[in-house]
Amino acid sequence: MENFSALPLVVLAEKFAALPGIGMKTAQRLAYAVMEMPEKDVQAFADAILGAKKHIHDCPVCQNLTEQALCPICSSAKRDHATVCVVEGPKDVAAIERTNEYHGVYHVLHGLISPLDGVRPEDLRINALLDRIREGGISELIMATNPSVEGEATAMYLSRLCKPLGVRVTRLAFGLPVGGVIEYTDSVTLFRALSNRSEM
Amino acid sequence: MENFSALPLVVLAEKFAALPGIGMKTAQRLAYAVMEMPEKDVQAFADAILGAKKHIHDCPVCQNLTEQALCPICSSAKRDHATVCVVEGPKDVAAIERTNEYHGVYHVLHGLISPLDGVRPEDLRINALLDRIREGGISELIMATNPSVEGEATAMYLSRLCKPLGVRVTRLAFGLPVGGVIEYTDSVTLFRALSNRSEM
Repeated sequence: MENFSALPLVVLAEKFAALPGIGMKTAQRLAYAVMEMPEKDVQAFADAILGAKKHIHDCPVCQNLTEQALCPICSSAKRDHATVCVVEGPKDVAAIERTNEYHGVYHVLHGLISPLDGVRPEDLRINALLDRIREGGISELIMATNPSVEGEATAMYLSRLCKPLGVRVTRLAFGLPVGGVIEYTDSVTLFRALSNRSEM
Repeated sequence: MENFSALPLVVLAEKFAALPGIGMKTAQRLAYAVMEMPEKDVQAFADAILGAKKHIHDCPVCQNLTEQALCPICSSAKRDHATVCVVEGPKDVAAIERTNEYHGVYHVLHGLISPLDGVRPEDLRINALLDRIREGGISELIMATNPSVEGEATAMYLSRLCKPLGVRVTRLAFGLPVGGVIEYTDSVTLFRALSNRSEM
């Protein structure tokens, strides 16, 4: 049986498959979809990919992605610059902004400490955070890393590093998710919900 | 609350979301993934998109995607050029080739007749198929369109059009999928499996 596949299509499918959560089957479907797009849409797609990478850089203060010299949050006078929410990645900033309830600023670590994956503290934006604290004006760090082993370890590591610099370090609350069902909640979460119970 | 999203990232997410089966949430995840890719990988991704569209065209005979003047299947002396399998799209050619059991050639319609979606017979590569039949040398057309309303209608339409030209027109068999369970099989499939039963 001959190789019937057109090579550039295979190459494109492999690029799609390199993206997170995209398997080879979905990647092939996407490659075929690109083939069916009009020429100008294909060009616009390629331009969007290059444009995003070219025009977006890390904010020199909070390390979040931005296309401006200083990101809109860091440059806003309406935000509380004394409170810094420390997160793993830009996606977490977007999630917390969606609550519309947080008025402080952020610090994006661009990863979590994970010795198994070879991610050491020096691979994260920790020095930039320490510099911000040393410059003064920051009173509280909210550790908003995921409730995973790596997230907990990173929060703990940063807490030990930053507390001696005279800032208050807090952690997101753990407990039942809103709308959750006690019967189906894992025991660790249930234990956390019990120990953090509040007066009614 | 300020708009914290970097615009080129939103543009890129929208491009991903325009692909089939990719929702806005997945699209955002993919856009962030592109941001985390090294510069050269991003360039290679954009090149693959443009390259696929630029170097691949429709085979002048079977209308399948190819980067050669004539596709490998149409130009192969090992294939039976008297048997033409008529399919909706290039994905179907790939699926049938994977069986390693079909040795004829193909004709890709690039769609199915669907009045509800505004797809008329003249929007498909039907004239190219009629030209192939009129040129002679084709003895059988195998209608391998999906067992959907549109697939059935297209097969029926083509059958009426092509039979008068003196070719045998056949349809893929319907029945239980291999590994299927009778209990969970829909009644239409079960009816087809019953009426097409064979001697043991």
